[in-house]
Amino acid sequence: MKMFGKVVIIGTGLIGGSLGLALKKQRLCGRVIGLSRRRENAVLAQKNGAIDEIAGSLEAVSEADLVVLATPVDKIIDFGLRIRGKIRKDCIVIDVGSTKETIVSKLSPLIPNFVGCHPLAGSEKRGAANLKENIFKGSLCILTPADRTSKRALSTVKLFWKELGARTVELSAKKHDQVLALTSHLPHFLAFSLINSVPEGCLRLSSNGLKDTTRLSASDPELWSEIFFSNRANLLAALTVFEIKLTALKLALKNNDRKKLAGILRQAQTKRKLLG
Amino acid sequence: MKMFGKVVIIGTGLIGGSLGLALKKQRLCGRVIGLSRRRENAVLAQKNGAIDEIAGSLEAVSEADLVVLATPVDKIIDFGLRIRGKIRKDCIVIDVGSTKETIVSKLSPLIPNFVGCHPLAGSEKRGAANLKENIFKGSLCILTPADRTSKRALSTVKLFWKELGARTVELSAKKHDQVLALTSHLPHFLAFSLINSVPEGCLRLSSNGLKDTTRLSASDPELWSEIFFSNRANLLAALTVFEIKLTALKLALKNNDRKKLAGILRQAQTKRKLLG
Repeated sequence: MKMFGKVVIIGTGLIGGSLGLALKKQRLCGRVIGLSRRRENAVLAQKNGAIDEIAGSLEAVSEADLVVLATPVDKIIDFGLRIRGKIRKDCIVIDVGSTKETIVSKLSPLIPNFVGCHPLAGSEKRGAANLKENIFKGSLCILTPADRTSKRALSTVKLFWKELGARTVELSAKKHDQVLALTSHLPHFLAFSLINSVPEGCLRLSSNGLKDTTRLSASDPELWSEIFFSNRANLLAALTVFEIKLTALKLALKNNDRKKLAGILRQAQTKRKLLG
Repeated sequence: MKMFGKVVIIGTGLIGGSLGLALKKQRLCGRVIGLSRRRENAVLAQKNGAIDEIAGSLEAVSEADLVVLATPVDKIIDFGLRIRGKIRKDCIVIDVGSTKETIVSKLSPLIPNFVGCHPLAGSEKRGAANLKENIFKGSLCILTPADRTSKRALSTVKLFWKELGARTVELSAKKHDQVLALTSHLPHFLAFSLINSVPEGCLRLSSNGLKDTTRLSASDPELWSEIFFSNRANLLAALTVFEIKLTALKLALKNNDRKKLAGILRQAQTKRKLLG
C-alpha cells in the first residue's frame, strides 16, 4: 500500500537506512531521499538500496509527505527546527530517537504533525553498512504523542509502523523516558561498566555468559554518551534503584545469609522468565 | 577412540548428562553409568541416551575407569570423599564444578588421580531435559591440577576433553576462582540484580538489549546461590572492582562530564570488541 509520495530521511544510519530499505521493498512510498552528515554514509545507503537519491540540501524536505529525523538524539531538535519553515503544512514528521521528553516538548508545539517514535529495533551495530530490511518486523515501536499532536498524523504514523510489521504502543514522552531508563539505558550503562571491570588478560577465559551480558557495550560510544545525557535524571534514578538491589544481594552474600540470597535469585528468575 | 571401559557420572544434569551423551556418541568409553539424587533425572538421562544404566548405589564406582563428579558445587567434595575408599587405585576422577579452590584443596591430597575441570559450557538451562551432545565442541575447559596431581591422570584428562572438541588451558585453582569471579560470577550477580530493578509492568516495553543482558538471571537460583557462596571472597572483590567502574561512569554523568563519559565508553567498546 502506497502511503506517501516523497519521503525524506535525515540520517541514513542503521535505523534511518533500514527504514528506507523497508519502505522501498514494501512500496509504501514513491521516492526515498536521504541526507547524511557524512556523505559516505548516504552513498552507502544508496548503494544498498535504502534511498533513491541523496538530497543536495535540506530544501529537499519542501516537497516531502513524510520526514524522518533519524540522526543521533542530540541532533534531532536542531534538524526539526531547521526543517520547520521549509515543510508543507500537511507533511508528517517523525523522529526515531531513543529518548523523547526533550524532543517532543521542543518539536510538538512547533510542528502539529510531529509524532515522536521510538522503534525498539536498534543494535550494537550502527551505520549504513548494517542495514536490515526486516529490522522492524515483530518489534515494538513506542509512540509518544503530545496533547496537540494532530489526530490524522498519529493515525497515519500508527498505520505506517503496522505496515512495517511493528506493534505500536502509546506512552507520554515523560513516561517513555522513565521506563526506557530502566529497560534500556541502565542495561547499557551496566554493560559498559562490566566489561571495564574485566582485565583484558581474562577475556580469553570467558564464555557466552560474559559475551551476552556485555553485548550492549559494543554500542557506539558517541551515540550512547548522548543518549545517557539526554535522559540523565531518569538514568541516575534508575541507577539508584539498581544500586539498592545490588547492595541487597551483596549484603546477603557478605552476611552468609543463604536463605535471603537464594530468595532474591528466585525472585529474579521468576521475573526473567516473563521475558521469554 | 575408546579411552575408558566403565565411566560413572554422578549428577546427570546438563553438564553430566551432556558429557555422557558425547562420550557415548563418540564411543570414547565402554559403558556409562549414571547416578542422580533425583531418580527422575537419571531416568530422563537414560531415556535421552546419555547413560546406559542407572547405578543402584555408589558402589558402582568400584569398577570405574573414570568417575565424573557433576553435582552442584556444594555436593562435589562430599561425593569425592564418599567414593574415595571405593574406587580402584588407577581410577581417574574429575569434577566439573564452577569453582575450584575448595574442591581441589580437599580432594587432590586424597585422590592423586583427581583432576579439577571447569568446562565453560554451561547455560541458564539445566537438567537432563536440556542435554546437548555437542555442548563441549569449540568450548574451553579449564583444568586446575595441583602439585600432587598424577601426570598420567592429567594427560589422560587433557586428551579426553580434546576428544570432546574442547580446548584446554591449565590454571591454578586459586587463579581460576579469581578469574571466574570476574568473567562469570560477577555477570551472573549483576544480571540477577538488573532484572530485579525493572518493574514487572515495564518488561513488555523492553527489547533484546534487556533480554541479553539479563539472560543469566534465568539460571537456577539454588545452583547459583551455592556457586556465589563457594567463591564468596573473590566475588566480593570483583564486586568492589565493578562498583569502582560504575561509580566513575555515574560521576561523569552526574557532573555532566561528556568528555570523560565518552572516553569510558570508548575504552569499554574497544575491550568488548576483543570478545568478538
